[in-house]
Amino acid sequence: MTWVEVNAAPELIHTPPLRLKQKSADRTALNTDMYCLLKCSPLILAVAVCHGWLFGDFVGKQKELDEISLWPLPQKFQSSAVAFKLSPGSFQIVHAKQSSAGPSCSILVNAFRRYFEYMFGDLKKHEKSRKKVYDSDLAELQVWITSADPECDGYPSLQADESYELSVDEPSAVLKAANVWGALRGLETFSQLVYRDDYGANNINKTDISDFPRFAHRGILLDSSRHFLPLKVILANLEAMAMNKFNVFHWHIVDDPSFPYMSRTFPDLSQKGAYHPFTHVYTPSDVKMVIEFARMRGIRVIPEFDTPGHTQSWGNGIKNLLTPCYSGSSPSGTFGPVNPILNSSYDFMTQFFKEISTVFPDAYIHLGGDEVDFSCWKSNPDIKKFMVQQGFGTDYSKLESFYIQRLLDIVAATKKGYMVWQEVFDNGVKLKDDTVVEVWIGNKMEEELQNVTGAGFTTILSAPWYLDYISYGQDWQRYYKVEPLNFPGTDAQKKLVIGGEACLWGEYVDATNLTPRLWPRASAVAERLWSDKSVTDVGNAYKRLVQHRCRMVKRGIPAEPLFVGHCRQEYMGL
Amino acid sequence: MTWVEVNAAPELIHTPPLRLKQKSADRTALNTDMYCLLKCSPLILAVAVCHGWLFGDFVGKQKELDEISLWPLPQKFQSSAVAFKLSPGSFQIVHAKQSSAGPSCSILVNAFRRYFEYMFGDLKKHEKSRKKVYDSDLAELQVWITSADPECDGYPSLQADESYELSVDEPSAVLKAANVWGALRGLETFSQLVYRDDYGANNINKTDISDFPRFAHRGILLDSSRHFLPLKVILANLEAMAMNKFNVFHWHIVDDPSFPYMSRTFPDLSQKGAYHPFTHVYTPSDVKMVIEFARMRGIRVIPEFDTPGHTQSWGNGIKNLLTPCYSGSSPSGTFGPVNPILNSSYDFMTQFFKEISTVFPDAYIHLGGDEVDFSCWKSNPDIKKFMVQQGFGTDYSKLESFYIQRLLDIVAATKKGYMVWQEVFDNGVKLKDDTVVEVWIGNKMEEELQNVTGAGFTTILSAPWYLDYISYGQDWQRYYKVEPLNFPGTDAQKKLVIGGEACLWGEYVDATNLTPRLWPRASAVAERLWSDKSVTDVGNAYKRLVQHRCRMVKRGIPAEPLFVGHCRQEYMGL
Repeated sequence: MTWVEVNAAPELIHTPPLRLKQKSADRTALNTDMYCLLKCSPLILAVAVCHGWLFGDFVGKQKELDEISLWPLPQKFQSSAVAFKLSPGSFQIVHAKQSSAGPSCSILVNAFRRYFEYMFGDLKKHEKSRKKVYDSDLAELQVWITSADPECDGYPSLQADESYELSVDEPSAVLKAANVWGALRGLETFSQLVYRDDYGANNINKTDISDFPRFAHRGILLDSSRHFLPLKVILANLEAMAMNKFNVFHWHIVDDPSFPYMSRTFPDLSQKGAYHPFTHVYTPSDVKMVIEFARMRGIRVIPEFDTPGHTQSWGNGIKNLLTPCYSGSSPSGTFGPVNPILNSSYDFMTQFFKEISTVFPDAYIHLGGDEVDFSCWKSNPDIKKFMVQQGFGTDYSKLESFYIQRLLDIVAATKKGYMVWQEVFDNGVKLKDDTVVEVWIGNKMEEELQNVTGAGFTTILSAPWYLDYISYGQDWQRYYKVEPLNFPGTDAQKKLVIGGEACLWGEYVDATNLTPRLWPRASAVAERLWSDKSVTDVGNAYKRLVQHRCRMVKRGIPAEPLFVGHCRQEYMGL
Repeated sequence: MTWVEVNAAPELIHTPPLRLKQKSADRTALNTDMYCLLKCSPLILAVAVCHGWLFGDFVGKQKELDEISLWPLPQKFQSSAVAFKLSPGSFQIVHAKQSSAGPSCSILVNAFRRYFEYMFGDLKKHEKSRKKVYDSDLAELQVWITSADPECDGYPSLQADESYELSVDEPSAVLKAANVWGALRGLETFSQLVYRDDYGANNINKTDISDFPRFAHRGILLDSSRHFLPLKVILANLEAMAMNKFNVFHWHIVDDPSFPYMSRTFPDLSQKGAYHPFTHVYTPSDVKMVIEFARMRGIRVIPEFDTPGHTQSWGNGIKNLLTPCYSGSSPSGTFGPVNPILNSSYDFMTQFFKEISTVFPDAYIHLGGDEVDFSCWKSNPDIKKFMVQQGFGTDYSKLESFYIQRLLDIVAATKKGYMVWQEVFDNGVKLKDDTVVEVWIGNKMEEELQNVTGAGFTTILSAPWYLDYISYGQDWQRYYKVEPLNFPGTDAQKKLVIGGEACLWGEYVDATNLTPRLWPRASAVAERLWSDKSVTDVGNAYKRLVQHRCRMVKRGIPAEPLFVGHCRQEYMGL
């Protein structure tokens, strides 16, 4: 896809240098932009009218701040200058007659309501009794599920077909998708096409869209261990994820500092390992709610239970699970990673992951395996003896692999697939063919991608997208500019990169600041993972993202500003 | 004041290096801290009991996360291990019999209610009917205003006496202050002394405090031009300021991007210069509300109307106010700073500042004067002619001074004092003796402080506290470690440094993220400006600040976390 470079204003999106106020620079940039927006628009509009259609560029018709602005950009679209009015009092989202889904399809029924609210939520009251008064009007959006099984009661999966086709024309718009997962993505796009004109009337332009994701795995990692995240925060971020067409919630649910997951099999894990056994835990009902809320939005929930490191909080509830560290010849009272030399450790893991495999419906569980600190193992005489017995010498990564290998076999027996951090691959652990290796270390990232895919494993990339690292200015641009397939390898290797994740580790975020810190920075990753490889124009992205973030704000998500400016409706929470 | 260094845990507050997850490091730090907290506490308590009093260190009694933790630390205090219970059903804050203030003193009446809510807001319902059942009990806090004029209907000023003495003992606590301003600070301290024991009962320890601020001007700058800040956000931050004993709201209300101040004399300024003439403006009533809300909390409101630069938005509403820039021999259509060669500019400023001087009750107005860009002036032939006429040569800073000098005279005629950014001093403009020069440029800050105070001017420091610049990790420590008087100069010069300001410029903040980005980072500045110079222990500060931020969260302020951990009551907004 190519871009018509009419309105690019690269000077607008520069990052001001540190230390000086840079107010003057801001002013100039703003003026240039506003000037261009006013001067250039008629020209584009004229071109558009001559050709009947605009290919891949909506900028020309953006006179108002909250006019259409698609994010992430669809794969193929055509838009005409012809606009239809939508009346909140009469417009409907309906099942197409030919659709295999109907009123009993709760995913769609919920989505129809949700998107109607997004589009007309602030209008519908006083518009309710209004008659149709416009010449041209869009009466309805028909949602047509074409495959025999719409998957209304299913869970999204790595194989889910998220493609859709959307045609907006009189008298009806039609959204066509094989099943509900594509329909959800198309509904989001449709809602983004609706804009208000100068009189406050709802408009949508004649449009044809054919869309599908570039990568199948588009995830957000949240960490509920370093800080407990109240359910409300998690649900709000699932909402924002759907607005950005993310489809995986990687729930880094437990770690060293706390164990908020309430296990039915081992209640002591949270009873003794959570920050508080009642107020800072996720009950089975909470977990169900997260999974169902995510399912409604076509989002998979992949829980991570990271072992053998990152398990301090596990040790509180499970006796003898962790390795006792030694100071000289006696135990120091502190503990290291899971004790890999005791059968009881594996018995525990067997029971524990049996529970996890039933609680979480997704086909994958993330097993962690990163950053194992060997110092405690090295201090422990029993471990040292075991090392000798096994012929591991002093190579503790062999002990780590010994543990992981057994764990993988335990989890494989539950019929689940697994994801692991890259160290597990690096240490030469034998992995199932369908294992997903997550590349997170920024240093030598390309080499790692080459190696992992060279060995035939599917991989996802999170290394360039550690959003917990903040800096002054528009760092979203850095995330946006990443090209995930930019590593040496064959086409077959590139195909093994199935996506990526934006990670927001929890050291410095909790309910007070998580949402504005994540959005719209993660939106940059969303477009990179959904849109065509050629969609790389930062200037154009800036303009659409400014509006997309205002749309999120309007929908109740406190997404932070990109730069100087305003939204028609500012955030009205605190 | 000296500190007992028992519980210092410097490894807890290190900033993790970039790029790696640092989870292992976090874990170790946490363990060390928890270990120390548990192991060391009995020791301190024992020492405390032996001496009867604990001097300047509450750490020993902190078993629970939300126990007492004073911020900013008072100048002098003694605390005993003897604890009294407080019953929300019967405890009262009352005017002392000898007090010169009574029930008609709205500042105090409002403050009594506010602090009662802070202390018992979540308890009072089910505690209402409860009888006094404790052996020792604190029945009331008596607030005793000692001076003849309590200043109940006044505004806080640079000269306000904020000192207070607080004695907590059976059967009554007594808070003594010359007037309401000291009483407000003492009420905040009292509320911070109340903690809940393991049974949820409210406790306060026998305590004596004598307190006063180190610096008289302790400000927060918010910028409502780069992004419009809804009233709700401003008021929430005034609340947070009071919790941190800040006493100046430096309202950078207008700037290049927008002019949200609604002027009665020149309505076109906001009508044409605001982002939106109705939704993105501060009406006269809004401004009054901000000033009154601030007054109730002992906070001065100093508006900044920055000229001659930073005035792009002014030009929309006032014809010929800005200098037309030239491209070659003809006007380019863009505009520069205020036109300093037209009498109409000064006529406008006279009328405008006459209004401002009546709308804002504070004795000071901030006139800006920073970052004047000369390029437009240099392009304009009329300006060039004027330069020749005045004998300025090509030194445009002389033209800048010419403008500023006349502006200062205009404002002085309104009987207001003024504050200016350091450039006005640097350019040799003749200033009134009571002018406050604000040092904001980080480079050569010490030299500037030396020069400004050497010339006999009072100064405030904001250079080290530009909180809009963010970075990964605990940057509050950097703000905390600044010593404002660490520059070469005589004692007389040091006395001219009357305080400082934490500045949160608006490029990247609006209602969505302002509050968590400002707090508790600004709290570091609060303690530096209030507490004794010797209060510099970062390890001790970390522990108190962790609890202080949880207190802010409990009171409804989404102050972000310092590091891994939790609050007993997490933030329940979004």
